[in-house]
Amino acid sequence: MRLEGGTSVIIRVEMDKQAVTFGELVSVIGSHGGDIVAIDVIGPGKRLETRDLTVSVQEPSIVERLAEAVSKLKGITLINVSDRTFLLHLGGKIQVHSKVPIKNRDDLSRVYTPGVANVCLAIRDDVSKAFSLTIRRNTVAVVSDGTAVLGLGDIGPHAAMPVMEGKAMLFKELAGVDAFPICLDTKDTEEIIAIVKALAPTFGGINLEDISSPRCFEIENRLKEMLDIPVFHDDQHGTAVVLLAGLFNALKIVDKPIDRIKVVVCGIGAAGIACSRMLLNAGVTNLIGVDKDGAIHRGENYANEVWNEYAKRTNPNNETGRLSDVIKGADVFIGLSRPKVLSVDDIMQMNADPIVFAMANPEPEISPEDAMPHVRVFATGRSDYPNQLNNVLVFPGIFRGALDARAHTINEDMKLAAARAIASIVSEQELNEFYIIPSVFNDKVVPAVRKAVIQEAIRTGTARKVPGDFRFRD
Amino acid sequence: MRLEGGTSVIIRVEMDKQAVTFGELVSVIGSHGGDIVAIDVIGPGKRLETRDLTVSVQEPSIVERLAEAVSKLKGITLINVSDRTFLLHLGGKIQVHSKVPIKNRDDLSRVYTPGVANVCLAIRDDVSKAFSLTIRRNTVAVVSDGTAVLGLGDIGPHAAMPVMEGKAMLFKELAGVDAFPICLDTKDTEEIIAIVKALAPTFGGINLEDISSPRCFEIENRLKEMLDIPVFHDDQHGTAVVLLAGLFNALKIVDKPIDRIKVVVCGIGAAGIACSRMLLNAGVTNLIGVDKDGAIHRGENYANEVWNEYAKRTNPNNETGRLSDVIKGADVFIGLSRPKVLSVDDIMQMNADPIVFAMANPEPEISPEDAMPHVRVFATGRSDYPNQLNNVLVFPGIFRGALDARAHTINEDMKLAAARAIASIVSEQELNEFYIIPSVFNDKVVPAVRKAVIQEAIRTGTARKVPGDFRFRD
Repeated sequence: MRLEGGTSVIIRVEMDKQAVTFGELVSVIGSHGGDIVAIDVIGPGKRLETRDLTVSVQEPSIVERLAEAVSKLKGITLINVSDRTFLLHLGGKIQVHSKVPIKNRDDLSRVYTPGVANVCLAIRDDVSKAFSLTIRRNTVAVVSDGTAVLGLGDIGPHAAMPVMEGKAMLFKELAGVDAFPICLDTKDTEEIIAIVKALAPTFGGINLEDISSPRCFEIENRLKEMLDIPVFHDDQHGTAVVLLAGLFNALKIVDKPIDRIKVVVCGIGAAGIACSRMLLNAGVTNLIGVDKDGAIHRGENYANEVWNEYAKRTNPNNETGRLSDVIKGADVFIGLSRPKVLSVDDIMQMNADPIVFAMANPEPEISPEDAMPHVRVFATGRSDYPNQLNNVLVFPGIFRGALDARAHTINEDMKLAAARAIASIVSEQELNEFYIIPSVFNDKVVPAVRKAVIQEAIRTGTARKVPGDFRFRD
Repeated sequence: MRLEGGTSVIIRVEMDKQAVTFGELVSVIGSHGGDIVAIDVIGPGKRLETRDLTVSVQEPSIVERLAEAVSKLKGITLINVSDRTFLLHLGGKIQVHSKVPIKNRDDLSRVYTPGVANVCLAIRDDVSKAFSLTIRRNTVAVVSDGTAVLGLGDIGPHAAMPVMEGKAMLFKELAGVDAFPICLDTKDTEEIIAIVKALAPTFGGINLEDISSPRCFEIENRLKEMLDIPVFHDDQHGTAVVLLAGLFNALKIVDKPIDRIKVVVCGIGAAGIACSRMLLNAGVTNLIGVDKDGAIHRGENYANEVWNEYAKRTNPNNETGRLSDVIKGADVFIGLSRPKVLSVDDIMQMNADPIVFAMANPEPEISPEDAMPHVRVFATGRSDYPNQLNNVLVFPGIFRGALDARAHTINEDMKLAAARAIASIVSEQELNEFYIIPSVFNDKVVPAVRKAVIQEAIRTGTARKVPGDFRFRD
């Protein structure tokens, strides 16, 4: 049993009242540090009875022993122990609501037959009306095949659902976007492409999530070509945007121009490649990618074709060797790889005022305790250290803007604008080594990202609609 | 422009205030029978201004001329005229809601990373937990390819969305089921099967809707074999269940036993076949199917293989000829075909106390005005005549029961029990020729159908869970 930050648990037991008294049960729970705060009889009965006991505990760690003691009581069958996180997940975390009630025949005839037929015919005659007359206007699919979920790997589509539901919640709570989780029981690239293409009429945008590399590139690229709605692989681009936002502000602190820095990106998977592309688009000239075999450079012929392409566009001085070689003289280290690949010695070889973004999750490329004494700016993906670079800062506002502009796509300019917008939330007065990025709960973020994304969508010609607040008259 | 039952419309205009005064606009609207009840300035401006005028009209029919007159005014650009049905559809009819708010870091860590990881791992280790820890417990996909929508035919997946959204609303409002519309941009049978199979991890049930025949049979049958959650083509089975419910009560009125009647089913498409199967399961012995080429009988070799199968199981006396031939001596006519295929002369040839269910939509097989003087019980699919046989009576309760029992499937016994449950809502005292079926707003229907479906699911061994109210202790 795993427990997460809860101070009360619910223990469901079946009691044989001829074999055990409730007093004995209370006594065992109390003697193991639990305090019963509520009792709910779930299944009453003369002899066998099911009860939910809400038990307050000082430390989550004691629950396991407590539960074991309860289960050993004669006459008690321990059915379940749920902590607050599990309880919150019962029945899932999202719901589908009607926008208007159906209370009588008149309501029914408008939302369903016969009235709905006229709305259907209007869309049949002009398919663009689907954006105004259906949920397409505000709805995003959060699509995963469950192959690269969090740091857990290929846990399958059923097990991926809680993450996608959580993402749908964040879409709604932070940006008012209706998002629906779609977890696919297939890992076949072609099948995933065909499915998402076929799903498109329902949605105004597609958020691809937690699909393993390298399939994620092919899936995203092909769908972007096929569909006239945005397709956005958040693990790549959300991460890239928030990293760039953090870098813009970190560079202000060290006062280095972006076109003069040396950046080492460690971990050239989906996120590493997307991040490198954004860094180049943002003006970085000296960027070196490092993966398991060392620095990616021209002259090597990689089995992964994406790396051969990568070598052409990066590493202008064609440096070779391992991370500890190419880190020499670097201004910025960006880790999207594995725990403990960066050492203090590596950092000591970097330029003055080193910037280290160690994003491996949950354990960064170097522990904050080891790194922080030796760097100027340090950031991770974690919430328990300063400077959390979290893509929750990115996807709600990006999709809010793309949907409001009915954008065909989310292009590089829109992503770059989103990064600048996120960075801009931190004012000159506020900016410091421990505050380069706003909190995910900063309510200025989504409006700023939305505005920047819409402006770029209009400027680059991908917007199909100019939102009301962007229309200037006379 | 089509209008549906509205007495006020919203007219959006752009006014060039240098070319036209608001008084002129009011005057034109007034002289065409419109009464401005509200003005909303949507896009203000010094010269050009966008306004929404809410205009009350006595008759929807005058709106077209009124709008034309407005559009001809110099300085006015008519942008849009919306009636109440269209306004209600703006932005779609359903929303995705979070069940719990995300207000702070503690909330975030439970619904999303890092807390969600434990929930994911629990499902990975025991996939059946997806039914308790994700939306799967209460969520149904309403899947269509837009090929047979209402009476409109193949209007495409975008245009089908308003119907599927309306259906999702009914699921929620009537039975508390979270349903999500999925309109597929493909008509390929194999692709639809593969897609729905892949979507299954997200859902606890699949409602197939408005998929044209004969593909709907193959799609439903194959998916039923593949998936361990209910797959239910509502056009077939919802219609069959409600027809049978109506027939049970109509037979009580005429006091004829179901195994002694002669039934003619006209229109042997998806609904006709499903309906015939249910009638046979319910005890009908003499059932004859009629389609374009006349009575379906043995001895003919039909191109449609489903009809050859049908011929084997029906028409025990192997009657041949057209509808007007086989209708002789029939006790019940069930039409699932086209307008005006049944004549008064045909009815005159039926047995005493004829029962006619004329379900063609929107225009029945015979007009109620023509039929009602000559029949004992008359029913249609329409809401503006007595005895509306509407499958809105069926799908909410059937899925409510199937989800609550975590049924693998919705089998024939469950459907038959649902039909009996719907029929039972009309008491002996209430039953009469004009009240054989409850209203879709009768709140006893869903609980009765749910209970009957759960009982049969448990009895037939397809239930994976016994709901709390079905557990008996000691």
